[in-house]
Amino acid sequence: MDGRVSHIALKEFVIQVFVKMGVPVEDARVTADVLVAANLRGIDSHGVARTRRYVQGLRDGVMLATPEIQVVRQTPVTALLDGGAGLGQVVGHRAMRLAMEKAANAGVGFVAVRNSNHYGIAGYYAMMALEQDLISISMTNSATLVVPTFGRDAVLGTNPLSVAVPTGEERPFVLDMATSVVTRGKLEEYDRLEQPLLEGWATDERGIPTDDAARVLANMKEVLGGGISPLGGTGEELGGHKGYGLAFLVDILCGVLPGAAYASQVYPKDEGGKPLPSNIGHFFGAMQVDSFRPAQEFKASMDDIIQVLKSSAKAEGQERIFIHGEKEFEMAEQRMREGIPLHPKVVKDLRDIGEELGVPYAL
Amino acid sequence: MDGRVSHIALKEFVIQVFVKMGVPVEDARVTADVLVAANLRGIDSHGVARTRRYVQGLRDGVMLATPEIQVVRQTPVTALLDGGAGLGQVVGHRAMRLAMEKAANAGVGFVAVRNSNHYGIAGYYAMMALEQDLISISMTNSATLVVPTFGRDAVLGTNPLSVAVPTGEERPFVLDMATSVVTRGKLEEYDRLEQPLLEGWATDERGIPTDDAARVLANMKEVLGGGISPLGGTGEELGGHKGYGLAFLVDILCGVLPGAAYASQVYPKDEGGKPLPSNIGHFFGAMQVDSFRPAQEFKASMDDIIQVLKSSAKAEGQERIFIHGEKEFEMAEQRMREGIPLHPKVVKDLRDIGEELGVPYAL
Repeated sequence: MDGRVSHIALKEFVIQVFVKMGVPVEDARVTADVLVAANLRGIDSHGVARTRRYVQGLRDGVMLATPEIQVVRQTPVTALLDGGAGLGQVVGHRAMRLAMEKAANAGVGFVAVRNSNHYGIAGYYAMMALEQDLISISMTNSATLVVPTFGRDAVLGTNPLSVAVPTGEERPFVLDMATSVVTRGKLEEYDRLEQPLLEGWATDERGIPTDDAARVLANMKEVLGGGISPLGGTGEELGGHKGYGLAFLVDILCGVLPGAAYASQVYPKDEGGKPLPSNIGHFFGAMQVDSFRPAQEFKASMDDIIQVLKSSAKAEGQERIFIHGEKEFEMAEQRMREGIPLHPKVVKDLRDIGEELGVPYAL
Repeated sequence: MDGRVSHIALKEFVIQVFVKMGVPVEDARVTADVLVAANLRGIDSHGVARTRRYVQGLRDGVMLATPEIQVVRQTPVTALLDGGAGLGQVVGHRAMRLAMEKAANAGVGFVAVRNSNHYGIAGYYAMMALEQDLISISMTNSATLVVPTFGRDAVLGTNPLSVAVPTGEERPFVLDMATSVVTRGKLEEYDRLEQPLLEGWATDERGIPTDDAARVLANMKEVLGGGISPLGGTGEELGGHKGYGLAFLVDILCGVLPGAAYASQVYPKDEGGKPLPSNIGHFFGAMQVDSFRPAQEFKASMDDIIQVLKSSAKAEGQERIFIHGEKEFEMAEQRMREGIPLHPKVVKDLRDIGEELGVPYAL
């Protein structure tokens, strides 16, 4: 398999890791599925490379292997969920299921979540609802890396949001985007390649645009100021205030609405610098297509708009117009066939984790 | 009043214009209120300068003065509304009221609308729900001016979306944004000033970035190709594919979901080039804060996050971080006090309309 690993074997390994950490097997399965789905879709920054972080979170006690997940308050169409400091994937999966149940019964369902943790890729949860002909939304707040327009300090997260919409013959529409112009992973990539950052991506410790990836990453780590710009870039000229507004909105729905941490409250530490439970929040929603229009009709129109977009004229030098999610579906098909390529550092890390826990890494 | 007109007198004039066009007085009042609200908030491109377009639409019969607005299908939490080709403001107002009623009774309410027309500023409708402690959303599809990432032709609208969130002492959060990097109004402004467009704003008839506003506007008019780029700019480097995804999503919820026109179907013409009913679609939603968290608590946290953002450190050379809607609230306060400045061309146009209809323009 030429340095690539089977997604099935990889998932099995990750399940065993979480089981050894005390996570019930069904929850371990969900967590591994979310992580490996990221790798399959080509979003390696959110895949199994993060296993160490979750294992460490469980060891530190800021993530709980057997959380008490509670419905604090609910109506037929809404719920507030307390994640009990569980793994974000376990909590997120439970919350999305609840939103889907409500949508199936009542037409729509919205679930706001507090006291959770990093949940991986936003798109995983939105995509869960596709098979039931639901339009769905998933979002989360996250570590403060994004600087509001005209600001100097990162007080918002890259706060991703995802919306999935069912289709007929075409692949589903799956928008899955950070509300920042780029993610930290992109800065790290440019840093490794020693390439200058593009103008509009990031600002330095004075809040001034910079192309120096190493400096931005170091400033982030030491919380010296600066960070990633919102979608639309630095300032207002290319609409940075709109991306800032979207990041803010995600923090309102995920942080303020459920009573979770928001803005710089996320990932708190105690006086000695020890991490405390992150109190990350999420927001999920699902809506029946059928309430508005027969699902078959809707899906046929979705196919049509997708075909209209894809077949419209291309810019000079371009050969293809993409639909959101399309690149990721193609990548997943390829990686299911050919395996997932893992960076040697990630392989070493997984092997180390396996050794620590007595789970042989033999992929 | 130094060339400025009172918003009250201006609204009264616009009401009389619509009444003369056969619009029932209550509907004329709503329409005028939406238009003047745009002027008050400083969004003059969507204010009374558009009166001519609505008058013409009514004369052409593509907008109806006394539409039959019908609830085609509904559940306690959703509705599909047919706007009967009425004025977008009248239809939008009715639809938002319905979403708010459903939210008040059932926790959430979503209304998708087909067979409507240009509805003015998206934010007007979202803001209607603020006083009832609802978080609300409003969006519409629109004339095709926006080129998808890697495309050559404009097949999507500037498709604005607005979200309003209630607060305690602070001014409400009101995000009201085109999903394009800029609006056509901005290109027209740069054209008048003979200034070069910024890179990332627009593309020419080959789909290549251009700084020539006159060329882009002429191409748009003649449908020769090119147009405005999505939020994030041309290409993917600054996240243009995300803005494209948001514009697409708005068209899904406003066009595909209610069975309205979408993509290049909006603003159709007959074989002789005569405009046909636009079949524009909208989407409205409202959600009770109380379902998740006591409204007082929520609003106190909203005040807090706003204060955290506003008081966070500023970039070098900057003095202020804005909250979404803040500039517009301040402008509205000023214009309520000092009057609304109208461009001489707009005054002439209103005066002409007044003469045609026998409504004296004496502001």
